[in-house]
Amino acid sequence: SSEMADEQGCASPLELFNSIAAQGERVRALKAGQASKDELDSAVKKLLSLKMSYKAAMGEDYKADCPPNNPAPAGDSGPDATEAEEDFVDPWTVQTSSAKGVDYDKLIVRFGSSKIDKELINRIERATGQRPHRFLRRGIFFSHRDMNQVLDAYENKKPFYLYTGRGPSSEAMHVGHLIPFIFTKWLQDVFNVPLVIQMTDDEKYLWKDLTLDQAHGYAVENAKDIIACGFDINKTFIFSDLDYMGMSPGFYRNVVKIQKHVTFNQVKGIFGFTDSDCIGKISFPAIQAAPSFSNSFPQIFGDKTDVQCLIPCAIDQDPYFRMTRDVAPRIGYPKPALLHSTFFPALQGAQTKMSASDPNSSIFLTDTAKQIKTKVNKHAFSGGRDTIEEHRQFGGNCDVDVSFMYLTFFLEDDDKLEQIRKDYTSGAMLTGELKKELVEVLQPLIAEHQARRKEVTEEIVKEFMTPRKLSYDFQ
Amino acid sequence: SSEMADEQGCASPLELFNSIAAQGERVRALKAGQASKDELDSAVKKLLSLKMSYKAAMGEDYKADCPPNNPAPAGDSGPDATEAEEDFVDPWTVQTSSAKGVDYDKLIVRFGSSKIDKELINRIERATGQRPHRFLRRGIFFSHRDMNQVLDAYENKKPFYLYTGRGPSSEAMHVGHLIPFIFTKWLQDVFNVPLVIQMTDDEKYLWKDLTLDQAHGYAVENAKDIIACGFDINKTFIFSDLDYMGMSPGFYRNVVKIQKHVTFNQVKGIFGFTDSDCIGKISFPAIQAAPSFSNSFPQIFGDKTDVQCLIPCAIDQDPYFRMTRDVAPRIGYPKPALLHSTFFPALQGAQTKMSASDPNSSIFLTDTAKQIKTKVNKHAFSGGRDTIEEHRQFGGNCDVDVSFMYLTFFLEDDDKLEQIRKDYTSGAMLTGELKKELVEVLQPLIAEHQARRKEVTEEIVKEFMTPRKLSYDFQ
Repeated sequence: SSEMADEQGCASPLELFNSIAAQGERVRALKAGQASKDELDSAVKKLLSLKMSYKAAMGEDYKADCPPNNPAPAGDSGPDATEAEEDFVDPWTVQTSSAKGVDYDKLIVRFGSSKIDKELINRIERATGQRPHRFLRRGIFFSHRDMNQVLDAYENKKPFYLYTGRGPSSEAMHVGHLIPFIFTKWLQDVFNVPLVIQMTDDEKYLWKDLTLDQAHGYAVENAKDIIACGFDINKTFIFSDLDYMGMSPGFYRNVVKIQKHVTFNQVKGIFGFTDSDCIGKISFPAIQAAPSFSNSFPQIFGDKTDVQCLIPCAIDQDPYFRMTRDVAPRIGYPKPALLHSTFFPALQGAQTKMSASDPNSSIFLTDTAKQIKTKVNKHAFSGGRDTIEEHRQFGGNCDVDVSFMYLTFFLEDDDKLEQIRKDYTSGAMLTGELKKELVEVLQPLIAEHQARRKEVTEEIVKEFMTPRKLSYDFQ
Repeated sequence: SSEMADEQGCASPLELFNSIAAQGERVRALKAGQASKDELDSAVKKLLSLKMSYKAAMGEDYKADCPPNNPAPAGDSGPDATEAEEDFVDPWTVQTSSAKGVDYDKLIVRFGSSKIDKELINRIERATGQRPHRFLRRGIFFSHRDMNQVLDAYENKKPFYLYTGRGPSSEAMHVGHLIPFIFTKWLQDVFNVPLVIQMTDDEKYLWKDLTLDQAHGYAVENAKDIIACGFDINKTFIFSDLDYMGMSPGFYRNVVKIQKHVTFNQVKGIFGFTDSDCIGKISFPAIQAAPSFSNSFPQIFGDKTDVQCLIPCAIDQDPYFRMTRDVAPRIGYPKPALLHSTFFPALQGAQTKMSASDPNSSIFLTDTAKQIKTKVNKHAFSGGRDTIEEHRQFGGNCDVDVSFMYLTFFLEDDDKLEQIRKDYTSGAMLTGELKKELVEVLQPLIAEHQARRKEVTEEIVKEFMTPRKLSYDFQ
């Protein structure tokens, strides 16, 4: 009704949000209380009208778990205001206001990287003779720098190596933390190359309220979860910065070399450091840069300075490697190539944060089958409609549905995933059914991970973390 | 004459300086040409008058080798102008406009350190049962921080250790570079304590136009000269930062700890770093600070974090240790104590610079007996008068005479030194005789150093530079 529309026109987004939530409750109560069809229809109609008003004011659909964070008058939310809310991505903060997550196409333009297109994926398939990993097929690894150069070298039988890492800020790792490692393991397998994995316990000590021993302890614990991803012990070196810096003069020499060629002005521009930051933070980027150069690992590469490095990582780490690529030619080393992944969304939605201190924000590697089921059912943000009727009529929204997003990460079967997408979008599949699919993928995945992690003895960790020769087939 | 005075009154200090030099030449020519006594007297009188005018304008005596560096009108050189020309002292620049050298009393006030007074020297004598080193007796080590605390601990049989260092910027070391090492060797002998010597090859790489290998090579070469000072191999560990950082996780852990507790603002204030400085320079102070803490050397002190450190060094290094002492309590370590030395003057005078690229600016450890004699005779700035007559009449000035200064560093016999001071000041001793005394001290000193250095084999250097247990008598 026009009355209602007027009312709603004066309401703030937050007031509208609350009205919708209240009206949703009313609809559910009417259903539970076996109300007349007329009563129910009228209530549902009002609910839909409120949702339309909300969308008109906010520019996006109402989502039950996501109140508007900017309670400004509706008139302010023009296209300009939307434009101003750019995603923010750096190694410490990833922020987006969209339930669909960060706009990755924009990020590619902003960062100056290249899109991983069909042509590149085909080339990887030809070079390796292997079907591309689902992370490539589905645009989860979506951006790169110089991957064609790596493939040129590979096709000419010239060696390269992989480098990835983790900041061990706590013992608790969640499934999202596995993404770069699952992909890196695949790269190691299909290219048959050595791999170095940096645990930046020094960084976590500098940035967090941790002791050195805590940060180092987390590095060793996290290494076990990484090893459980199935890396080849003969081709993989995992190192804690706190340990390795004190075990390898070659590593420190490269750190100092990089530190000589980067000014405070530069790290200020790249990382936003200020004069109040400690000198450890200011000089740390050189430590994350150093493993990009092969002579940081004399035990593996001898004094070779020119073995090409390929870094698979989430795109928030790119600032470190933009800096590294800027320095490399000035110190006589090749630039590392990169493969960038999207971010893994929190259970509560792509615009919320996963946090080790909030067990419900993600699926942790220590979760039981029951915990997984409960978390997905209770906390996974849904792109479904408020009522079964609405859902059947209008269908669900896979673009914002976290369960569907998780399936794109972990369900191997492309056809099945596509079928789920179609069915959920059409309304043929209900939210409960979608969540059941995810639970059935996650439960064995986590259980198998836990079983493999149990097999990781202290001796195996020690072996992985000992500087040593690696076996690889460079011609 | 009043005419002359008027003329001189209008002259700039530089013009006056040049007039004096010309008049000096004229006097020498008249003497050589056997001129009449009247002619000579008149010329000498004019010379003395010019010198009086110079002193009136400049506030200090004319010195032949030292033209006024500020050719401002004489009227500008009031007490205010003098006050404004403060000495400048930091780890990279020592600047003074006085031929007597830096005003060390002012420096003590500015740096907030304490004077090494007679009472402290007496206490060191009582504690060690040894006659205080001439560097203490003569105020060459003139300032300290917390030395009484070190003596408290020592008298209570609590352990301490010595830490000093060198920045290996070239192979060429001069006698001045030996001062901290000569004194540190004495401290090691009389207190019987372990000693660590840091060669900051990483610093020299960062600051100078050197490769890593050059800087490291200088560190090893300089270590030979340091070893030749006679350090006890069983109580001394010498390390290159480039090597040791990659050999000791304990060292890097302390570096990171310090780096977490010092901001860019702080190093900007202490060292004058700017936003254009490289991040290596900005974080380096933590590397010079770390050896102040005993657990940086687990091979010597195990995991003991509380062994008191005493640092003998030239006072230009104090900024590093002011920073260190500020950080220490915040990371749970004791503050290092310090003993500060004055600067060793260049041959051309205390306000000039010694430089490895100017062989005449100092006595190098590789100089032959003949080179030493020539350098002293030709280049050592003299506090003597221009003519023998003047010298006999007015005496020399030991306060600005570099040969006398060098004797205070190297002539062990106090009585002889005092006799030389008296004789030179009265005019009884001529400049040539004073220089001869110095040559006779320096020639055997350098020859003996060269003989000891020859005995320093690669094996001995390697042993000194290997992280290992040291023998010492801590109760």
